[in-house]
Amino acid sequence: MIGVIGSGDPENRHDPLAIEVGTLIARYGAVTVCGGLSGIMEAVCRGAVQEGGTTIGILPGSNKNEANPHITFPIPTGLGVARNVLVVRTADALVALPGGSGTLSEIALALNIGKPVVDLGGWGMENVRAASTANEAVLLALELCEVSRDKRDQQALSGK
Amino acid sequence: MIGVIGSGDPENRHDPLAIEVGTLIARYGAVTVCGGLSGIMEAVCRGAVQEGGTTIGILPGSNKNEANPHITFPIPTGLGVARNVLVVRTADALVALPGGSGTLSEIALALNIGKPVVDLGGWGMENVRAASTANEAVLLALELCEVSRDKRDQQALSGK
Amino acid sequence: MIGVIGSGDPENRHDPLAIEVGTLIARYGAVTVCGGLSGIMEAVCRGAVQEGGTTIGILPGSNKNEANPHITFPIPTGLGVARNVLVVRTADALVALPGGSGTLSEIALALNIGKPVVDLGGWGMENVRAASTANEAVLLALELCEVSRDKRDQQALSGK
Amino acid sequence: MIGVIGSGDPENRHDPLAIEVGTLIARYGAVTVCGGLSGIMEAVCRGAVQEGGTTIGILPGSNKNEANPHITFPIPTGLGVARNVLVVRTADALVALPGGSGTLSEIALALNIGKPVVDLGGWGMENVRAASTANEAVLLALELCEVSRDKRDQQALSGK
Repeated sequence: MIGVIGSGDPENRHDPLAIEVGTLIARYGAVTVCGGLSGIMEAVCRGAVQEGGTTIGILPGSNKNEANPHITFPIPTGLGVARNVLVVRTADALVALPGGSGTLSEIALALNIGKPVVDLGGWGMENVRAASTANEAVLLALELCEVSRDKRDQQALSGK
Repeated sequence: MIGVIGSGDPENRHDPLAIEVGTLIARYGAVTVCGGLSGIMEAVCRGAVQEGGTTIGILPGSNKNEANPHITFPIPTGLGVARNVLVVRTADALVALPGGSGTLSEIALALNIGKPVVDLGGWGMENVRAASTANEAVLLALELCEVSRDKRDQQALSGK
Repeated sequence: MIGVIGSGDPENRHDPLAIEVGTLIARYGAVTVCGGLSGIMEAVCRGAVQEGGTTIGILPGSNKNEANPHITFPIPTGLGVARNVLVVRTADALVALPGGSGTLSEIALALNIGKPVVDLGGWGMENVRAASTANEAVLLALELCEVSRDKRDQQALSGK
Repeated sequence: MIGVIGSGDPENRHDPLAIEVGTLIARYGAVTVCGGLSGIMEAVCRGAVQEGGTTIGILPGSNKNEANPHITFPIPTGLGVARNVLVVRTADALVALPGGSGTLSEIALALNIGKPVVDLGGWGMENVRAASTANEAVLLALELCEVSRDKRDQQALSGK
């Protein structure tokens, strides 16, 4: 599962780069996880679903109707912005597109719990690998998913 | 999405009634939501997946490996027992099988937020409709899902 | 810290038994923890504060103004009903007064994580010790706080 | 209530700037809120308690024993890193000292929900007012607490 984070501003709901990221995630057979609302999240899901992919939207509110129309499985948490933590935990790796403070909080939470992030939004942060195209970002995220899986297996084995 | 709640005791992971509930949810085309661990949850997912259905497991821990082997989409929350709230919120209606205090907390949380529960575990509680067979329970839950959907639409329309 | 749980119905905000429980908790030098809203919660806090005690209100919403007027320290969680888990975790022992499904969820969550509950609301549940007066309930809760503390120390020592 | 966020690295538990911040918060009559662990959090609480102040520690784990020794009221959430949201929500304004990704996530979450942050850690972020001394930071935070209170009152009045 690849998490995609970015601006929720509805003006970005047809963002071409985000649509391409969603399309590629689906084409490579992965599941898209996001915060389920509009903007970049909606554009990514649009791309994923058009390509036949599956999308999981982890919503801040308690009503599934707040999900964008391309969410296959809405998870209404009722936790408000604390749902950002769940987006990060559910993804095996994240692709960060341009966004504001909400997206920044997700990048920081990911770094805090050791979840890999690929920067496709010009964030320019330490410990975040940058990609220059959607394809490069998705391929790098897929590779990092394997790292997450291995880490998970080790944690499970060590009983942590 | 139908939530199924019940004992996490691994001894129940082949429970025939739970397997039947999962099988019927999948046969009727619905998605199974549960807490993702062993016991009744595992038995329900086993039935659902064997019938070609999809299962979502909302886990208390932060490692996907703690999901039972029949979970299609694991959601590792890291929230501990607070994830019970998310199982209840994600389901449109719930079927309660036999269980302990964890299951009881989920029934109570569902009643508290107005989510319908079907009792297939002899809970005998007020405001919970009882069913005597797996088929009766799943059909009743499907009917109550429609009630949840209508309520959701009304809430969305009223801007709540 | 003693948690007090019970109905949030504003009609109960002058409930004499709840006021007495709050008064006694303060008199014995303990801190009152509750969900911070009206009804039984408000009555308990009224008693505690009148006796010079301290109250912590763990609120479901994100606005401190929703706290009842007798809360010393409001904790606005924005987590909705998931805050019930925090009331239970923050208390070292709980006193359950009469209430509805919200209170029942808190009793069940307490049992689920092994937090002691004293029944002063006629709940009549297994593994919950009943008390017949406010004084008996508070003294029993204080005793059970010690059990919680010892358990905590053991967990800390064993590195769990 | 003033939230103080910063590194949890135990090496910082005697950090003079953090101790001074805590001392001043207490001297000016405010309550210190933090994540309850070691490092900067412990230093701030040390200062606050030495000055006769009160400290609230919102802990990631479920055991109160993980709180640093200067926490007056530990709130063990069991929510892991999602407790960062509660630190931000409970504070009326925040002072950010030097830290890592956890602190950054708290600054971003604060910006996201409109909670004022004073930068005393060289974060240099947009929409965050910088202070150059502990006294300047605490006075500015106290002033911003009033802004938070007014905003809260307006939200309560408008029924949001």
